[in-house]
Amino acid sequence: MAQRYVRVTDTQGQTYYGLLEPNRNVRVLDAPPWLGGQPTDLVLEVENYRLLAPCAPSKIVAVGKNYADHAAEMGTPVPEEPLLFLKPSTAVIAHHQPIYYPMQSEQVEYEGELAIVVGERTRNCPSEQASSKIWGYTIANDVTARDLQRKDGQWTRAKGFDTFCPLGPWIVREISIGAHLQTFINDESTPRQSVSTEQMVFKPHVLVSYISQIMTLLPGDVILTGTPQGVGPLERGDQVRVEIEGIGKLENTVVLSP
Amino acid sequence: MAQRYVRVTDTQGQTYYGLLEPNRNVRVLDAPPWLGGQPTDLVLEVENYRLLAPCAPSKIVAVGKNYADHAAEMGTPVPEEPLLFLKPSTAVIAHHQPIYYPMQSEQVEYEGELAIVVGERTRNCPSEQASSKIWGYTIANDVTARDLQRKDGQWTRAKGFDTFCPLGPWIVREISIGAHLQTFINDESTPRQSVSTEQMVFKPHVLVSYISQIMTLLPGDVILTGTPQGVGPLERGDQVRVEIEGIGKLENTVVLSP
Repeated sequence: MAQRYVRVTDTQGQTYYGLLEPNRNVRVLDAPPWLGGQPTDLVLEVENYRLLAPCAPSKIVAVGKNYADHAAEMGTPVPEEPLLFLKPSTAVIAHHQPIYYPMQSEQVEYEGELAIVVGERTRNCPSEQASSKIWGYTIANDVTARDLQRKDGQWTRAKGFDTFCPLGPWIVREISIGAHLQTFINDESTPRQSVSTEQMVFKPHVLVSYISQIMTLLPGDVILTGTPQGVGPLERGDQVRVEIEGIGKLENTVVLSP
Repeated sequence: MAQRYVRVTDTQGQTYYGLLEPNRNVRVLDAPPWLGGQPTDLVLEVENYRLLAPCAPSKIVAVGKNYADHAAEMGTPVPEEPLLFLKPSTAVIAHHQPIYYPMQSEQVEYEGELAIVVGERTRNCPSEQASSKIWGYTIANDVTARDLQRKDGQWTRAKGFDTFCPLGPWIVREISIGAHLQTFINDESTPRQSVSTEQMVFKPHVLVSYISQIMTLLPGDVILTGTPQGVGPLERGDQVRVEIEGIGKLENTVVLSP
């Protein structure tokens, strides 16, 4: 099994980066792993920590319509260049934290996505060097209030609500080419979304290079690589699970906004 | 003269928050002022510091078409609700730092704006309580690649380039109602933009409240309140200056992207 890199909080609220051990204990690192963090003697047992999102990005850059079949279902062509938008870092939640259904929307939808974690400061990086800037991969759900997305034109509100960026549960360094992505609702056995990530129009290293020509990427920043066909509504009480082969399962429950 | 709150770097590259004294020395604070920072014994003389942007926002939330005359010049109505977008924190530069003209654009434009600095964690704040969440005000230039804004639909790339968010030179706690905003190019005596900030459609406390219903605002976060009529092109070599009565002048020069 690939090494899993986590970020956790202990019972005192202290935050750590760590390695998830096969017995589910966490071996604490002395810094974020992309900044050279090394294992320490501190081990947190499973009852003494809670998973956080596996990084704390300074920014989340997302890519719209990066699978042809999803562009088609939205009634739009695949863009000639990656179509970028931003999600605020305050939208990030961890595996098993609740997604709050905001009062402003009547149509909140899931979007399962492969997420890239950037390892180092990256600016104006040619695509042939961009793979080395990718530290690892995790899973994201680009939760979207579809009605507000249509209404506003700009996607910031629709995709920017607190809790609208589940991320995790952990980071792995590598995934295999064509790793499968699936999204499930509740106990349904048929996935709502199911795609090989090989179907992506603009591949991870192309995205890193493209974005770095515009804005400097910083260590721990996250790129959401777009969602495939099959987006659909979430209802209050739903459990939504995004699975990516070689990473794991990111699961969150939708609840009424507090 | 109102107290001016600055952020500076010294000759060793150490960063400080501070108070700008009338002789242009900086009295260092022991923390950001909105987190209760108090004056220390350390004073930096004018030759030993350089101004940074006066805060380091975790996010920059901006508002589109918040002056009726600018909405009209863009050929669009004033939105019924504030129209939000995000600029990445990597776009921020200080007073007198260069704006880089990116190779991807042939039409980079200035947008002079009043910027709000948020003082505390703010979520779901009613508008009648929102003024107390505003710690102060500074000046921003929401630099925009107009051609890419039109092409992309989403404004993230057009407004997200490194150096596209000049901010400063300092923060003041209060501005007078209707404080005048003007934008000048080079040594022209006629302003390109000239407006009373009273003409804003959605006022600062309304914006803070509205945004806080969507995403949690954090101390030091910045809200750009929109630009008035008169946006126009910047050329390489231009000096652009945004002035707001009671705050000061934010000046930057446009240079070729390195």
